[in-house]
Amino acid sequence: MTWTPKNPDFRRIVLESFSKQQAMSTIGAILSRVEAGHVEIELPYHESLTQQHGFLHAGIVTAVLDSSCGYAALTLMPPGAGVLSVEFKVNLLAPAKGLVLVARGRVLRAGRTITVCQADGFMRVGDREVPVATMLATMMTVTDRSDVTG
Amino acid sequence: MTWTPKNPDFRRIVLESFSKQQAMSTIGAILSRVEAGHVEIELPYHESLTQQHGFLHAGIVTAVLDSSCGYAALTLMPPGAGVLSVEFKVNLLAPAKGLVLVARGRVLRAGRTITVCQADGFMRVGDREVPVATMLATMMTVTDRSDVTG
Amino acid sequence: MTWTPKNPDFRRIVLESFSKQQAMSTIGAILSRVEAGHVEIELPYHESLTQQHGFLHAGIVTAVLDSSCGYAALTLMPPGAGVLSVEFKVNLLAPAKGLVLVARGRVLRAGRTITVCQADGFMRVGDREVPVATMLATMMTVTDRSDVTG
Amino acid sequence: MTWTPKNPDFRRIVLESFSKQQAMSTIGAILSRVEAGHVEIELPYHESLTQQHGFLHAGIVTAVLDSSCGYAALTLMPPGAGVLSVEFKVNLLAPAKGLVLVARGRVLRAGRTITVCQADGFMRVGDREVPVATMLATMMTVTDRSDVTG
Repeated sequence: MTWTPKNPDFRRIVLESFSKQQAMSTIGAILSRVEAGHVEIELPYHESLTQQHGFLHAGIVTAVLDSSCGYAALTLMPPGAGVLSVEFKVNLLAPAKGLVLVARGRVLRAGRTITVCQADGFMRVGDREVPVATMLATMMTVTDRSDVTG
Repeated sequence: MTWTPKNPDFRRIVLESFSKQQAMSTIGAILSRVEAGHVEIELPYHESLTQQHGFLHAGIVTAVLDSSCGYAALTLMPPGAGVLSVEFKVNLLAPAKGLVLVARGRVLRAGRTITVCQADGFMRVGDREVPVATMLATMMTVTDRSDVTG
Repeated sequence: MTWTPKNPDFRRIVLESFSKQQAMSTIGAILSRVEAGHVEIELPYHESLTQQHGFLHAGIVTAVLDSSCGYAALTLMPPGAGVLSVEFKVNLLAPAKGLVLVARGRVLRAGRTITVCQADGFMRVGDREVPVATMLATMMTVTDRSDVTG
Repeated sequence: MTWTPKNPDFRRIVLESFSKQQAMSTIGAILSRVEAGHVEIELPYHESLTQQHGFLHAGIVTAVLDSSCGYAALTLMPPGAGVLSVEFKVNLLAPAKGLVLVARGRVLRAGRTITVCQADGFMRVGDREVPVATMLATMMTVTDRSDVTG
């Protein structure tokens, strides 16, 4: 789907917000692509992020998918707006083991208040991409701080 | 609800598995309670785990809720079994700011293959507990490694 | 949880809206209780509503849970507001066979725009109530027709 | 994605099971396409299936999406297997008004026990298809009646 952004400066806005997500830098995630309605985040596999079987923890995978959805939504919001996750659902499709997790978030519906996004997560294993998770998420446009805090 | 565990050793099993979840120790989460069908995990607030507004990242909150659900499910599984997250859905109810995130996972339905769990997440703010998230999760009993690896 | 309704007339509002849901009368569902933040709907079992094994179809169970959540949310909305389902997730816990399906929807969080609800579904079997489904739902307050139509 | 069915007779199996879903015939839904890993169901709009604003009730839309996912999963299951919905999540994208609801369910991951599906719902409005809902669903292979009944 092709989207027309309301804010021509959307790439800078997303980069600035992502750089404030300390959780992303703590786990080592990087923003690898920002288009209108589409954002990619990559997370190199690291043992410090695993669950009991040595795969990336489902919550860590979710964190990256969530950010890719949130920022995909933010690319289409008007100047001055912020984004909040209302809810999301994740299906885990395969164990997350490989070199790098790639999360691709995209907008399915962009409304004034509610934006619906989907993100697919893949592990790069050699030259293949193995689907490991998919997320369906609801994001909200926030235009003042009172929305954020309550 | 009162559950009868199939494995009298369930507390040791959960503790051992939790200690292998490197993602939990990386973010600083601790297992604070293990009962049959009920598990609590606590995560002290830390700036390194935040999103762009300074609240705990929704993905980090989700990681802790997911582990509390998974281990609540594991307390009721037979000896030798392991647990995998099939899917979960989280609603974010309020910004996660405060001293400590408390995640309380409990079993709603324990089947042979599928266990359904719910987890509530609260932030301790002074002497109050503020609800910040709720999760509905589907967990799967795995009895051999081939299940785990695909 | 105890809620203070913003509209003292909330019972009449819910009754009027429910009576306009032709899908509810088509399947034979009745509104059995309306409190602030809590609504119950009952659906007598009927063969015309079943799936291939003779249980109530998951979608029919969902329809009743969705309406119970939506109207639980509506009880707390201000005068003039309408309610729309943004999304919901349902876990099916047991086959829906018995005399009557009882859906109990309640509000978890009531915000200005977003209301989060949970509904539990039970089948009455003799003098017992068997849990058959649970829903976590996101509802939206709509204050003008343009919200409803897009 | 291209799938290889385990049961060459999958079309007949799906047709027979669908014809036993009395809920589908009650609401007027018809099976319009059955391929390996992909099933389409159509539901003509009718006032008797509406919510309070005159759109198809979200639960009715969900019922059709759920059946399209369940039967998409069933096309890939071995002979003798049945399918049960474990859980699903639906996002409503736009009011469901138009001539016909088209639900397209497809398999994302086919496992021995768990099959993950997605369904998209569209309303035919003139010669356009307007996206109105999307579902992410978890289906389970059942191989004996004891699974179905508990």
